[in-house]
Amino acid sequence: GKVVGIDIGATHLTTVLADFSAQVLYEIDNPFDVSQGPKPGLAKVDAQVHALLEQTGHTLDGIQAIGVGVPGPVVAERGMVIAPPIMPGWSNFPIREYLQDLWATPVTLNNDAELGALGEWAYGVGRGISYLLYIKVGYGIGAGLLFDGKIYHGATGSAGEIGHITIDSDGPLCSCGNRGCLGAMASGRAIAERAKNLIEAGYNMRLGKLSSNGKISGLDVASAAQRGDTEAQDIVREAGDNLGIALASLVNMMNPQMIVIGGRVTRVVGDLFLGPVRQTIKERSLRVAAQDLRINAAVLGHRSTSMGAVVQALTLAFYRLIEEDEE
Amino acid sequence: GKVVGIDIGATHLTTVLADFSAQVLYEIDNPFDVSQGPKPGLAKVDAQVHALLEQTGHTLDGIQAIGVGVPGPVVAERGMVIAPPIMPGWSNFPIREYLQDLWATPVTLNNDAELGALGEWAYGVGRGISYLLYIKVGYGIGAGLLFDGKIYHGATGSAGEIGHITIDSDGPLCSCGNRGCLGAMASGRAIAERAKNLIEAGYNMRLGKLSSNGKISGLDVASAAQRGDTEAQDIVREAGDNLGIALASLVNMMNPQMIVIGGRVTRVVGDLFLGPVRQTIKERSLRVAAQDLRINAAVLGHRSTSMGAVVQALTLAFYRLIEEDEE
Repeated sequence: GKVVGIDIGATHLTTVLADFSAQVLYEIDNPFDVSQGPKPGLAKVDAQVHALLEQTGHTLDGIQAIGVGVPGPVVAERGMVIAPPIMPGWSNFPIREYLQDLWATPVTLNNDAELGALGEWAYGVGRGISYLLYIKVGYGIGAGLLFDGKIYHGATGSAGEIGHITIDSDGPLCSCGNRGCLGAMASGRAIAERAKNLIEAGYNMRLGKLSSNGKISGLDVASAAQRGDTEAQDIVREAGDNLGIALASLVNMMNPQMIVIGGRVTRVVGDLFLGPVRQTIKERSLRVAAQDLRINAAVLGHRSTSMGAVVQALTLAFYRLIEEDEE
Repeated sequence: GKVVGIDIGATHLTTVLADFSAQVLYEIDNPFDVSQGPKPGLAKVDAQVHALLEQTGHTLDGIQAIGVGVPGPVVAERGMVIAPPIMPGWSNFPIREYLQDLWATPVTLNNDAELGALGEWAYGVGRGISYLLYIKVGYGIGAGLLFDGKIYHGATGSAGEIGHITIDSDGPLCSCGNRGCLGAMASGRAIAERAKNLIEAGYNMRLGKLSSNGKISGLDVASAAQRGDTEAQDIVREAGDNLGIALASLVNMMNPQMIVIGGRVTRVVGDLFLGPVRQTIKERSLRVAAQDLRINAAVLGHRSTSMGAVVQALTLAFYRLIEEDEE
């Protein structure tokens, strides 16, 4: 038996083929643009899944279940996202049903950060941890909450929208229409925005040469910081401070044992970003809430979410096998 | 059989005597000063419990269990509070053990806001609600979290310290040493502080006459607002806006079904405070997270916490009865 795990990001698409012991047999990772909307987007997902299968000599018949992660608030029972800030056009589209019909294979749909929490808990740095927050810093910022060893979904399934918690009520405008949201102050897009503003204001930044096509991504800034650009480093550090402020609030509210920080921006800059995050959490959280807290980088790298999707696919596959057994 | 529920506040002490159907038979409510420290403080608690029993013709022998709530982070297994910001001197004092020895009766110790959540869920506005946040606005601000019908304590028992979540990273200084904590921008003490500053700055505020002894409480400002003082109303409204900002963040993160707002400040000013809270939550939370959300005032009034303490005492009493039965 085999399963497929899929991580649909705002700007990337990762698919992995895994066996029933969760060993990854093959992976394809490509750039992606979630803003193209569901039908063109899911056609690309379909093409990549078929490429994954062809490369390894499999067909859909040999796949027991497929787990899918998306960067928006998922209503699990309905298999769709509702009003997702960074997935314009996908709201209310029946993603799970559409893929299930397309592939004639059982599909599960979850939020990407929830899957990241699950992946790191099952196979990564969070093994054995019952109260874990997984923070995914990419184009946007999402959180997956694991309480008492279980994913916390909230009343209607949208829990974990950390990108829209306020850290400065008079701060910069966010895509959601409010001011000072974390997503407008610490995400990949906030980092890119900050660099663009500095360049437009005439700063002689080494980063400037990256913007020849007029586009800068958070990863460009993160790479420049990693290569020693001090302005880029300042931007990354400030983003880390801002994330630390939000996480200190969550430490006070949720009292977790571990915070796992993943996502592409984090991977590129590492301690340049995690250092200020750790320092600010330490400064701003209550001693009682943080005394046993561990703050770790995700160890599954770009695979936290796709491995969480594998966990969900395996769970679904096993339920199916048990049901068949009972019939 | 009877139980006693006790709500030890920063500035009040409420004790109730209840029967096994949770009917309140008698109540005593007095001013209190938690800053006097544990031994003098608990001596006053002891005196009030004895007064409660005497008034109703009972003795400790007839009391099966006693539930106690305190305004600090409780480590339930150890029966104490650790580093409580508004209970200076109580850290690490063995509150539960001390009272259990004093009264020779089983005692449970919990955070006051957690008990408020439990009280409103069992007997108040939150009946039948599985995902509930209870917010207690008094001298400080605390939160009790009920997820899937159970109190959420966090990894080490300190969850719910909403008073120290940041809503403005450059805001006013808080007692915890950080800037812009909710407790420094929306609590009873923040409201009082704001009024004092305005008076010292020479504002001709009707409230001024309340400060003849140099002390103003949040309740004084709340009362003045209720009587029509427009400056006091502005202060209360601004506090409501600030609480709304924090709660919108929590709605995005936790996706609750209901927020119950209690505490003495809330009771005095009502909609003058709740109106801005509701409006700001609506403006600042994501549609997907807030679409089914209800925001209600606590209906048990000043008894939310003491009724939660009764729930805990009854649970303990029933466990004891079952154990005795089995022996």
